[in-house]
Amino acid sequence: MALILTFLGKGGSGRSTCAIATAKKLSAQGQRVLLVTEDAGPGFSMVLGHEVLSAPTSISSNLWCCQLQFAQLLEQNWEQLKKLEAEYLRDPFFKAVYGQELSLLPGMDQALSLNALREYDISGDYDVIVHDGSGDQASLRMWGMPAGIDWYFRRFKQVFQASQFSKAVMPFVQPIAGAVLSGGRGFSGDLFDQPEVQESTSFVGQGVAAVKDPMRVRAYLVSSGDEVAIATARYLWGAAQQIEMTVAGVFLNRITDNTKQDFDPLPVYSLPSYTGDWQAQMKVLPDYLTIPAVPAPLDIDLTANTVRLFLPSFDKKQIQLTQYGPEVTIEAGDQRRNLILPKPLKGRSVTGAKFQAGYLILSFG
Amino acid sequence: MALILTFLGKGGSGRSTCAIATAKKLSAQGQRVLLVTEDAGPGFSMVLGHEVLSAPTSISSNLWCCQLQFAQLLEQNWEQLKKLEAEYLRDPFFKAVYGQELSLLPGMDQALSLNALREYDISGDYDVIVHDGSGDQASLRMWGMPAGIDWYFRRFKQVFQASQFSKAVMPFVQPIAGAVLSGGRGFSGDLFDQPEVQESTSFVGQGVAAVKDPMRVRAYLVSSGDEVAIATARYLWGAAQQIEMTVAGVFLNRITDNTKQDFDPLPVYSLPSYTGDWQAQMKVLPDYLTIPAVPAPLDIDLTANTVRLFLPSFDKKQIQLTQYGPEVTIEAGDQRRNLILPKPLKGRSVTGAKFQAGYLILSFG
Repeated sequence: MALILTFLGKGGSGRSTCAIATAKKLSAQGQRVLLVTEDAGPGFSMVLGHEVLSAPTSISSNLWCCQLQFAQLLEQNWEQLKKLEAEYLRDPFFKAVYGQELSLLPGMDQALSLNALREYDISGDYDVIVHDGSGDQASLRMWGMPAGIDWYFRRFKQVFQASQFSKAVMPFVQPIAGAVLSGGRGFSGDLFDQPEVQESTSFVGQGVAAVKDPMRVRAYLVSSGDEVAIATARYLWGAAQQIEMTVAGVFLNRITDNTKQDFDPLPVYSLPSYTGDWQAQMKVLPDYLTIPAVPAPLDIDLTANTVRLFLPSFDKKQIQLTQYGPEVTIEAGDQRRNLILPKPLKGRSVTGAKFQAGYLILSFG
Repeated sequence: MALILTFLGKGGSGRSTCAIATAKKLSAQGQRVLLVTEDAGPGFSMVLGHEVLSAPTSISSNLWCCQLQFAQLLEQNWEQLKKLEAEYLRDPFFKAVYGQELSLLPGMDQALSLNALREYDISGDYDVIVHDGSGDQASLRMWGMPAGIDWYFRRFKQVFQASQFSKAVMPFVQPIAGAVLSGGRGFSGDLFDQPEVQESTSFVGQGVAAVKDPMRVRAYLVSSGDEVAIATARYLWGAAQQIEMTVAGVFLNRITDNTKQDFDPLPVYSLPSYTGDWQAQMKVLPDYLTIPAVPAPLDIDLTANTVRLFLPSFDKKQIQLTQYGPEVTIEAGDQRRNLILPKPLKGRSVTGAKFQAGYLILSFG
């Protein structure tokens, strides 16, 4: 398992430069580093000064690099899906469609990217994965995907199991595979109880846990001195909390007392502009291998029956709280977060909510 | 129906500035203009110098502006979906889920954005819609979505109709709604033949046609003088051809003979940096209301049995051609395009392919 580092900020503020310098620094320290870019064009190769291929290629000692090619990844994943389908459905209907013809629809890139990162992570080949993504709201959607899928699964499982539709679909699910894979155990008739379904939900659960753990996945903000770039970085800082991702610091190319205050209590690093030598950048980077001392996105206090959510850069009127369904939903930064509450608070109503010094504090009755 | 203008290029190269100047120029010419931003943070409001809300708000004569709020749009669309579901399914299972709890998954933003643009387009309230999107590959996925959905629908319709699964699902489709909406005509038993399904595929068809028509949807490239930004803009130029979107010109903040050549034969406009007065930008903008004189993404010659695809910025080895399924698939710029051939060429094999002066020329046997 690797530590995954990613960078958030407005385009043009130096995210790729940060990613490259980070990968170079960590590999120089002896960490096995994979630098992964999602950038589709030739831009990243030009900044790196190396051709980047779709498969990880060594570019210096301990450092590998790859550029995700989504059409290719879709093709590979499709062939895997067809195999699974043939095992589970009596009447597979994807078999007639070839991976090579599939078009890419919105969202597939992020799903494929997250899956590729997961595979590199579990390969055991790398200690650190440095991720050069789009660094914006779309990146946050990607990192929020495990929690999002987990919610849809949790919520629609009840709905599906209660429906007539599920009874109509079940005869198409192949009992044989389940019986074989579960060591002779018969098919229970409960789709969600199958070992393969359990395995895929545990993938999702592992993803949720990884994004929350700052020693597994961690983001840094990047900004130029421009006020629009600073406001964007601040916004992404708050938005990242909504997916419980730890933001551990900010790289600024011009530090003033004001900009330092904008990101308080994050550590601020001065980012020199790239002039042909990576040493200047590498020197200012933090020690990535220690646990960052920054606020946790979520704090639960069971004695006081309160939940504290760190939501910097937002004010009270930008946050919406609802409890329509069985869970508490917090909307902020154009994202919805469905809180999973620990047992003692489960099913209880929110009786109070206040916003204090960057924290939303919920009390439960 | 409106003309939709969008901007492609590396982050930080001035896309939002271009969009704002374009909206200001066209509204000053008397066009009713809606400026739509997808930018989630406060950045766009700061550049515009006006607060931007989720609903179109007048900011000056003939000029309205809005910022798409995806959590809100998802909620609205979910309630519509539940209404449709109640009409069509005997046993609706989404009814128990509230719009306010839904999480946003990757791709939903683009689907919701495209739908919002479609609704503003057909509202008849605007002559021009200026779109400030992410301007990258994700934007192209959005514009390519109608063609992508059209392909999946076309391809999976055959597969679905041939399957046992379709026979199991049909009893859950409510015949009453079909009978009522089609004026007493009974439910034919063919899901794809229902007027509502026809209507939704015609939405998709209209989307495909709009993206191809330079008087409906048109892109401009934006780049700084930086070589990475230029390479990115060139890449997006080629990639836009893959979804048959017309790229009508390029805004550069530093024009040299070399950069002009990079974008030949596109018209090049010099983009001054913003200094607090929009007049300087507005002056250099093209006349958006005339048909742009640039190469069409696709040319079909039925006398010579050839298809010419304009693919600037790519070379031969970056283009892949396959004919696995019933259609010809062209892969370039990390996108797949499934060519719909006119009748005389349908079902015929590609017998030759050559790359010449930015064109891929296919001959059919």
